[in-house]
Amino acid sequence: MRIVSLAGGIGGARFLRGLQAAAPEAEITVIGNTGDDITLFGLRVCPDLDTVMYTLGGGIDEEQGWGRAGEHHVVKEELAAYGMEPQWFGLGDRDFATHIVRTQMLGAGYPLSAVTEALCARWRPGVRLIPMTDDRAETHVVIHDEQGRRAIHFQEWWVRLRASVPAEEIVLIGADDAKPAPGVLEAIQAADAVILPPSNPVVSIGTILQIPGIREALEAKTVVGVSPIIGGAPVRGMADACLAAIGVETTAQAVLELYGSRLLDGWLVAEQDSGVALDGVRVVARPLLMSDPAATEAIARATLDLLK
Amino acid sequence: MRIVSLAGGIGGARFLRGLQAAAPEAEITVIGNTGDDITLFGLRVCPDLDTVMYTLGGGIDEEQGWGRAGEHHVVKEELAAYGMEPQWFGLGDRDFATHIVRTQMLGAGYPLSAVTEALCARWRPGVRLIPMTDDRAETHVVIHDEQGRRAIHFQEWWVRLRASVPAEEIVLIGADDAKPAPGVLEAIQAADAVILPPSNPVVSIGTILQIPGIREALEAKTVVGVSPIIGGAPVRGMADACLAAIGVETTAQAVLELYGSRLLDGWLVAEQDSGVALDGVRVVARPLLMSDPAATEAIARATLDLLK
Repeated sequence: MRIVSLAGGIGGARFLRGLQAAAPEAEITVIGNTGDDITLFGLRVCPDLDTVMYTLGGGIDEEQGWGRAGEHHVVKEELAAYGMEPQWFGLGDRDFATHIVRTQMLGAGYPLSAVTEALCARWRPGVRLIPMTDDRAETHVVIHDEQGRRAIHFQEWWVRLRASVPAEEIVLIGADDAKPAPGVLEAIQAADAVILPPSNPVVSIGTILQIPGIREALEAKTVVGVSPIIGGAPVRGMADACLAAIGVETTAQAVLELYGSRLLDGWLVAEQDSGVALDGVRVVARPLLMSDPAATEAIARATLDLLK
Repeated sequence: MRIVSLAGGIGGARFLRGLQAAAPEAEITVIGNTGDDITLFGLRVCPDLDTVMYTLGGGIDEEQGWGRAGEHHVVKEELAAYGMEPQWFGLGDRDFATHIVRTQMLGAGYPLSAVTEALCARWRPGVRLIPMTDDRAETHVVIHDEQGRRAIHFQEWWVRLRASVPAEEIVLIGADDAKPAPGVLEAIQAADAVILPPSNPVVSIGTILQIPGIREALEAKTVVGVSPIIGGAPVRGMADACLAAIGVETTAQAVLELYGSRLLDGWLVAEQDSGVALDGVRVVARPLLMSDPAATEAIARATLDLLK
């Protein structure tokens, strides 16, 4: 069975680990969000790709959900001693090495998809991980604070401001001119099924869907999704702040409608959201908290059951 | 008193610390060798500039003589886990931060002299440190081994091969087109005296002298030097291998003749080399081993006495 899964960061990566356990024979291709990517200290950082790679490759900091296990922070301290900004983004020493390798390869002319493949040669995540695009398409957030109305990089809003200032708009800059990375459309076309994990519907899955050609390719396939919202609240992260920016309620029903029945064929919601419904979409309610590997595997199994 | 000193790495940096102790009121400008510079993992590394900066700024690994005190090696380990080459160059995590800052600034368009000034704003070495040139001028070494006759980067010969394969030629690539960095000629012209510390006469001092305009500017000044050779052997490092490459004996006499009386006005040699002499150069013999700060200060004092 060939499965394509879109993925953001922590939630997506954990779900994918459950999916691997639930369908050990499946060939899984993961299309990773790169809208969060940022250049820091001259180094290209791809938080979502790395979270998937580290999680599935056994290198993740399990407690934190992102970054490397057994991490040190000497480089960050030294950069701060030089007065370098920003200091609000937590890069560890092990993680720095990944960004150094990536930046060197990008500088040598390799596209991000080739770089990601090279990094995965070390981590062996057990899936084929492809960035949504090799082109620069970065999520920026329009805010209005004491400095006036301005657009800031998604990471500045998410990490530095912790989404405390309302987002007036969330824009994927460069989306119109971006092309799906090599292999993305081919993997979707060859897939028996497509899964949307409980990643952020705006800045993770929503970003991937904005790359011209991807949504259209997905609409031709059987697509099932897992709600990132349980009983009116995001399972983790601050998806509510992102949904508010695009005028969507933080409910499993609203996210289902956001994706729509042209895209979705099945929608897995939490037991407390069992009333959710949309014409043309099969909705099933199950426990949705990825509290441990067994619970996560069960959620993945329920997602696969939606395909039957 | 305004002093200009040329400098390579460890020997030069330690001598400079002695000079600061011997002449606390002097305004010292250091012209640093950048022929050893190398780009590793996409990051620009300037070993000699950093050794001077860390040594005079209190950040050096005293025992090793280069690199940072309290160093960690997580990034290097991780790069090796990715299969990245070279693995023979010892970059520590603290040191990596310096190269990240430098590379980011160079990428933003700042010349190396401005970058060095910015890095020194943190370290406050108590001297003005200027790279010999902002242009790319890298030392390469022609060797002949089982792979045939070929030119390799100086660091590969020095660090990886530990100069075990004879150098047939040592070439500063780019020297002809390189200009002295801003401030270099001005500092020499304004200097009351110029000091050549016991740095490598070929790949440190010799490299600086190859940048068009620097030797000529120095010849117009009072220049005194400290022999890097004691009793036929280099004080430290592998200067003999470099001297052999240019057909010069490893003696205080031969190095004196290499510099010549057009450049040098005074030459400090070790007591066992008291027979050394050259017309037009005042030669004085003193204990020359920089065994501790007091001994180094005494050598610096003897060097300054040559000016009287």
